Amino acid sequence: MGCTVSSFELDPQLARDCVVIGDFPVCRLLLMNDSQYPWFILVPRIQGVEEIYQLDEAAQQQLLFESSYLAEMLQVLFSADKINVAALGNVVRQLHVHHVVRFTADAAWPAPVWGRHPARPYTDEQLAEVMRKLKTGITDMPSFQWA
Amino acid sequence: MGCTVSSFELDPQLARDCVVIGDFPVCRLLLMNDSQYPWFILVPRIQGVEEIYQLDEAAQQQLLFESSYLAEMLQVLFSADKINVAALGNVVRQLHVHHVVRFTADAAWPAPVWGRHPARPYTDEQLAEVMRKLKTGITDMPSFQWA
Repeated sequence: MGCTVSSFELDPQLARDCVVIGDFPVCRLLLMNDSQYPWFILVPRIQGVEEIYQLDEAAQQQLLFESSYLAEMLQVLFSADKINVAALGNVVRQLHVHHVVRFTADAAWPAPVWGRHPARPYTDEQLAEVMRKLKTGITDMPSFQWA
Repeated sequence: MGCTVSSFELDPQLARDCVVIGDFPVCRLLLMNDSQYPWFILVPRIQGVEEIYQLDEAAQQQLLFESSYLAEMLQVLFSADKINVAALGNVVRQLHVHHVVRFTADAAWPAPVWGRHPARPYTDEQLAEVMRKLKTGITDMPSFQWA
């Protein structure tokens, strides 16, 4: 996958809406800049892919591994009531997989988060707090490269 | 997984809202009874699981295999513009993975389908047509058991 990874460019809208956290072996980890929910996105660093099934088998399995690692870590770290995992891509076509930490008391519950409320960007302090939290969560993943 | 599969019971709300199509080795395949979108759901037949990461590794990989098989088959069969794949579960907690065939001309595009429009149940004729289509699609999956 070296060749395809090296030509990867993050979709401009994802780049505008998110903060880059770092890289798992296959996926870039983003934080959606919306303080209403801890909302993370995995983007396989493979150019031109829109559907999970279009990844080769090794990349699919690594995406699954990274997704399950992330989901479990987030559920524990944030004491989540539910994790919403979704690959939609109707607007941004570059394959990306949402991992949204949900609480029964959050702004959109029990509806999905998309299109419910305008994003509320993090303050610098809030962002630093999320990053601090993540640093304590992603400790047993030596292959993770922080941005 | 034999033991856990044998004790499986489909969530009552999924049973009410959907038509059972059949069983892949791990997941039950459902059709949401909403004629506005070809909308399918995979439910791992393993009792008490709410998140993908809670499945053991073998079941996760088989779920991924069945999901990718289904997504590709649906995209070809319906000439879909996009497939939306999502494990939400805020209302129905039993783990289930939506696979929604999307068209740029459908009723909710480009928004996600959840909570947009009340379901419009299939007529008998429409349902027969979807089943006929599926029978031509699921041909290279000998392990699929029709309901």
